[in-house]
Amino acid sequence: MADASTVRQAIAAIAGGVTAPQGFTSAALHCGIKAKTGALDLTVIAAGAPVAAAGLFTTNLAQAAPVLVSKRHLERTSGMARAIVVNSGCANACTGTQGLADAEQMAHETATALGCSIDEVLVASTGVIGVNLDMRKVAPGIRTAVSQLSRGKGSDTARAIMTTDPFPKEHAVTVETSRGTFAIGGTAKGSGMIEPNMATMIGLLTTDAQVPPALLRRALEESARDTFNAITVDGECSTNDTLLALASGASGVAIDEESYPALLEGLLTVSRTLAVDIVRGGEGATKVIRVTVHDARTSDDARQVARTIANSPLVKTAVHGADPNWGRIVAAAGRSGVLFDINRATVHLGGVLLFENGMPHDDAAPRAAEHLRGTDVDVDVRLGTGGAADATIWTCDLSAEYVRINGEYRT
Amino acid sequence: MADASTVRQAIAAIAGGVTAPQGFTSAALHCGIKAKTGALDLTVIAAGAPVAAAGLFTTNLAQAAPVLVSKRHLERTSGMARAIVVNSGCANACTGTQGLADAEQMAHETATALGCSIDEVLVASTGVIGVNLDMRKVAPGIRTAVSQLSRGKGSDTARAIMTTDPFPKEHAVTVETSRGTFAIGGTAKGSGMIEPNMATMIGLLTTDAQVPPALLRRALEESARDTFNAITVDGECSTNDTLLALASGASGVAIDEESYPALLEGLLTVSRTLAVDIVRGGEGATKVIRVTVHDARTSDDARQVARTIANSPLVKTAVHGADPNWGRIVAAAGRSGVLFDINRATVHLGGVLLFENGMPHDDAAPRAAEHLRGTDVDVDVRLGTGGAADATIWTCDLSAEYVRINGEYRT
Repeated sequence: MADASTVRQAIAAIAGGVTAPQGFTSAALHCGIKAKTGALDLTVIAAGAPVAAAGLFTTNLAQAAPVLVSKRHLERTSGMARAIVVNSGCANACTGTQGLADAEQMAHETATALGCSIDEVLVASTGVIGVNLDMRKVAPGIRTAVSQLSRGKGSDTARAIMTTDPFPKEHAVTVETSRGTFAIGGTAKGSGMIEPNMATMIGLLTTDAQVPPALLRRALEESARDTFNAITVDGECSTNDTLLALASGASGVAIDEESYPALLEGLLTVSRTLAVDIVRGGEGATKVIRVTVHDARTSDDARQVARTIANSPLVKTAVHGADPNWGRIVAAAGRSGVLFDINRATVHLGGVLLFENGMPHDDAAPRAAEHLRGTDVDVDVRLGTGGAADATIWTCDLSAEYVRINGEYRT
Repeated sequence: MADASTVRQAIAAIAGGVTAPQGFTSAALHCGIKAKTGALDLTVIAAGAPVAAAGLFTTNLAQAAPVLVSKRHLERTSGMARAIVVNSGCANACTGTQGLADAEQMAHETATALGCSIDEVLVASTGVIGVNLDMRKVAPGIRTAVSQLSRGKGSDTARAIMTTDPFPKEHAVTVETSRGTFAIGGTAKGSGMIEPNMATMIGLLTTDAQVPPALLRRALEESARDTFNAITVDGECSTNDTLLALASGASGVAIDEESYPALLEGLLTVSRTLAVDIVRGGEGATKVIRVTVHDARTSDDARQVARTIANSPLVKTAVHGADPNWGRIVAAAGRSGVLFDINRATVHLGGVLLFENGMPHDDAAPRAAEHLRGTDVDVDVRLGTGGAADATIWTCDLSAEYVRINGEYRT
């Protein structure tokens, strides 16, 4: 994915998340949005001064108030920010003009406490749609959080952004280059309404590399395409999906066109780990399914077929039941809208060839079923149409538990 | 939907299905494809001579052998057919050259027994993908069926085309016009892989009106758009979807441009009943959901939004749990790719206004929940973008039973 570069790099995982890179502090607390006593529901991540910032947001036309506010702030500052404030438990979506005022007030409280401009604060919310924030809880919560900012609490931030997520998600790496070493850290949450082009998803990334805002935005877009935008739990794209990145520059390692591939590789590594963890923690999920489509004419074509397979309820239920049902995979590929030659296509499950020359290899089904009984399932489809592009989408299986969670979410 | 016409019409339901119209006979039997003793798995519908015929087929690029054969036969005869032969239990899909030979042999056996050309026989199959037909059972079964053709067994045909369908589906009407009365009858089967543009679906329609093949095809396309192509169970479009119509002319009522609306209205009535019954019998379904989108710029736009809502697993699970979750409906509309103004849009459930001016009417939620506890759910969405077109899609709820059926289908 990265071009050849004169700046050599080596990537190594390290402990921690958003405060692993130098120059960032965080705090998280329970302000009372979540009913459960002590459940973290508010977090602030701050840099020591305004730093380069970039964001990607849901493409849903029903955009939540914090999405509208964060986009506006990033435009006004041309990609600079001092802090990010996030609450969970309430999405502040479909909340009208009051919702917009509340999202702005979240930024205002954070800015006042930090002593920066309101436009230098980015806001994200996740949780139930159509309920207004109780600002009598949120506003004092923000002031307390800012007063508690420290370097060692990145993992609290990972917990404070969770809703129905079964486990917190954070990851960090160091990127060693001939110019010096910098770090990238991040956290993310799922867990339903997950579809390419963001979801109920929130992703927060930090780096101590020194990156111009425009280059940070390019790296975020490029890395998200094959990570956060390459996952789906249920084909739903939410009102709140937000991916934010801050670059403090504290490592002193400057990113320019020449060293850009090192930044991109680091972002891809952290983002892929977090994105696959979102799928693993998808509602009712028991397996992660990697769907790779080969031999397409374009990457977009490959992605479209992979998404159709990854969102097929019949494929997802078959994998859940450990049924090597290549027929459903062929049927999904055939209806994806992309050229597909059934007589030249192949389907592999866990590396086991199940379909070729328009006909099944049923003798191989038991070996494929064995693969499906594991927690990580690999689906590979060749379209048989002579192209050279490929793409991967990660999804999870569809279980009765998904139905239970989403049929009873509010009742 | 029909234009104003000088030929007046009155439509009345009558008993029966595909043999309710004059000029058709049928037979159904157990030839041994289905394991269960006595389970009907083969049926033939025949006219006394070649009659006008039309067909609509899956748009999936992985097309089953019987689909390819029926399309070819209709082309060769320019829309004439003597009989339809259908088996259930085996889809004859992904079966390579042997599958094509078997589908042709089904037509050949039927044609030989009836004394007509092989091209005058249409073939359909439904059931498991990737398994070859056992022609040692099917061929003698067809010969026996043809020898048993009679007028009173339309309901056996309705049972013989079922796979996982929980109940047989048939409907018939008379259409009274100033030119005389004709009848339309039909049967259909679902039940998974149901999505607009056909599905595992088979639909068989007959009429004793006298219709030129081109006009029959036009009426079939036009009526299917708002009936069979306006339903979805799980967003899956199968390899075998087939809708066939035969017109015997035995009533002596001629259909031309002037009387066309009478034929269309009759076809719409029969097709809508069968299509909604397919949804009602969808895998794991406990409720039929009618999704109507209003105020779109075009009917296609309205259909696209309605389909996105109808295929949303979060909407379908919420309805299953009787949760009036308008937020998921708004989120689905917003990601459909069609213009949508969240501040002017409205959402009604069962006629109860739940969302307006960008904000919820939560006080109305208990009344909407009451509506959701019934078996027929109405969802109405206005896009708030100033158009005048609307469209309806029917779907069913998503239950844990759907997951169970499809996780264990072959195991």
